[in-house]
Order: sequence, then structure tokens, then C-alpha cells
Amino acid sequence: MSSVSSDKIYLDNLAVGLEFHSGEQPVEADQIIAFASQFDPQPFHLDAEAAKGTFFQGLVASGWHTMAITMKLIVESVPFADGIIGAGGEISWPRPTRPGDTLYVRSSVLEITPSRSKPDRAIVTVECLTFGQDDEVRQKFTTKLVAFRKKD
Amino acid sequence: MSSVSSDKIYLDNLAVGLEFHSGEQPVEADQIIAFASQFDPQPFHLDAEAAKGTFFQGLVASGWHTMAITMKLIVESVPFADGIIGAGGEISWPRPTRPGDTLYVRSSVLEITPSRSKPDRAIVTVECLTFGQDDEVRQKFTTKLVAFRKKD
Repeated sequence: MSSVSSDKIYLDNLAVGLEFHSGEQPVEADQIIAFASQFDPQPFHLDAEAAKGTFFQGLVASGWHTMAITMKLIVESVPFADGIIGAGGEISWPRPTRPGDTLYVRSSVLEITPSRSKPDRAIVTVECLTFGQDDEVRQKFTTKLVAFRKKD
Repeated sequence: MSSVSSDKIYLDNLAVGLEFHSGEQPVEADQIIAFASQFDPQPFHLDAEAAKGTFFQGLVASGWHTMAITMKLIVESVPFADGIIGAGGEISWPRPTRPGDTLYVRSSVLEITPSRSKPDRAIVTVECLTFGQDDEVRQKFTTKLVAFRKKD
């Protein structure tokens, strides 16, 4: 398996097995609370004390905060020439992100399906695993991206 | 099909077919750009002029911004007593959210699967459709939530 991290790449350069490694992003309690206040205002994302009596037994990041940080790390590390254009995907959180965690993402090309109707593009299935500093998976995300051939 | 919008509900009160309707949330260009600057810094999410030459032919919200707004609307409209605790889900964006759109969410209970090992809870599959002011779907999200029975 190859690893790529800098040059812009086109569909022409993509291959199953190609991997991309992101940088690291620390996640602190104040960021968790700020994101949740705006988008996921629930006790276990807003207040460490209130979170103790919940399912999570402590403050945890919204799963969508973990996903949003993951997206930033993907944009920085998966250099598709025309951008990261996702049609959708499947997501799961084996364990939550907690204050003090440092996240990084490994993205792997699983499948490339050329478009039948539009020969300039393909759907590329990419698995993006988000790890913490303990190398335990915080999020599994498998997405279908649109990738384009280099224009002449 | 019933519609519920206020009281806190437990697993005991849930039934397949139950629907929840959210309020409305307008989405403006400055919010789209602010979210994308932090989490999805790509030309089609950051700059209306630069976005014209891209796949989207204009400024569009990050799909994760649509999801984050959807989550806020779900938290406000799906009153699970112990909170919205998601194990994961499937997401797709039939069309992007654009500046000036007003979003609302309809959530429907599709399936209830009692836990075999823990009789106090079940996995509840909920489909959350995010619509724009034109009633066209911006996002389809199907999630598996944990719901608990009322404690004695």
C-alpha cells in the first residue's frame, strides 16, 4: 500500500489500497462545549458535572463534532484535485471523543467505480478511520466521493 | 401515524410509525462560510465567487453543516428522555443546502429492536429527512439510537 500526502491527485492517479494519513488535532473541553452549544445541546456534551450521571459518565464530544474535525483532517490530507465531494456515507462511533483526546485520520481507497454515463468521473469508496492518541478508533466513516479525470 | 412534539418519552412510549416534526432553521452565507472555515475549508463552501467554477456552481453548505443543523433540530424535536444517543447511521445529500435555504426535519421511527442482553433498552432506527423551504430533501439520515425504559 502506498501513502500520498501532498500533490493534487486525479482519478487517473487513484488506486485501490492507496492510503492517506492526516495530521493531528487536539480536542479540548471548551471546543466540545462550544460545538455542542450550537449544534448538539445535550447535558453529556455541555457540562462535565451534569455528564457524570448520563450514559457516557462524563463529558464527550458530539459525534458530529468528531465528524467535523475528521472532515477538516480529510480535506488537509486527501488531495483530490477537484476537492472532497461526498455523496454520502456510513458512520459509527465505537467510542466517544473525550476532552484531551488528540485525533488523527487514516483514509484508504476501498473501491473505484467508473461512472457509466459520465466517462470523466468515478465514485471512489473511501474508508476514513479516526483514531485517538491511544490508537483506539473513535469513528468509522465510509464515504462515496466523486473523483474526476484530469482535463486535457 | 402519530405526531409527538413536547413531553419526554421513554422506550415504553415509542412505536414504529411515530413521527416528530422540528422547527425551522434558516441558513445564511455567513454561517456556511464560518462553519466551513473551521471544518470543511474548500472553495465551494468558502467563497461564492470561487464556487462558481466548481462542481456545485455556487456556494453550498458543507454536508456536515447540514448534518449539524439537522442534529440541533432533532435534539429540539425528538424528546427521548435520556437524550439522543446515536451509535451511528447512514447519510446522503440528494442536493446541497444553499444560502437562503430554511431547513426543517421530519423524524420517523422505522424499527425498534430490544437489546437481548440489557432489558432496560432497545436500538431504535429513526429516519430523519431534512427538507428545504421548497420541500425538497437536502439530506437523508437513518440512525440507530439507544432508548431506555422508564426506571421504576
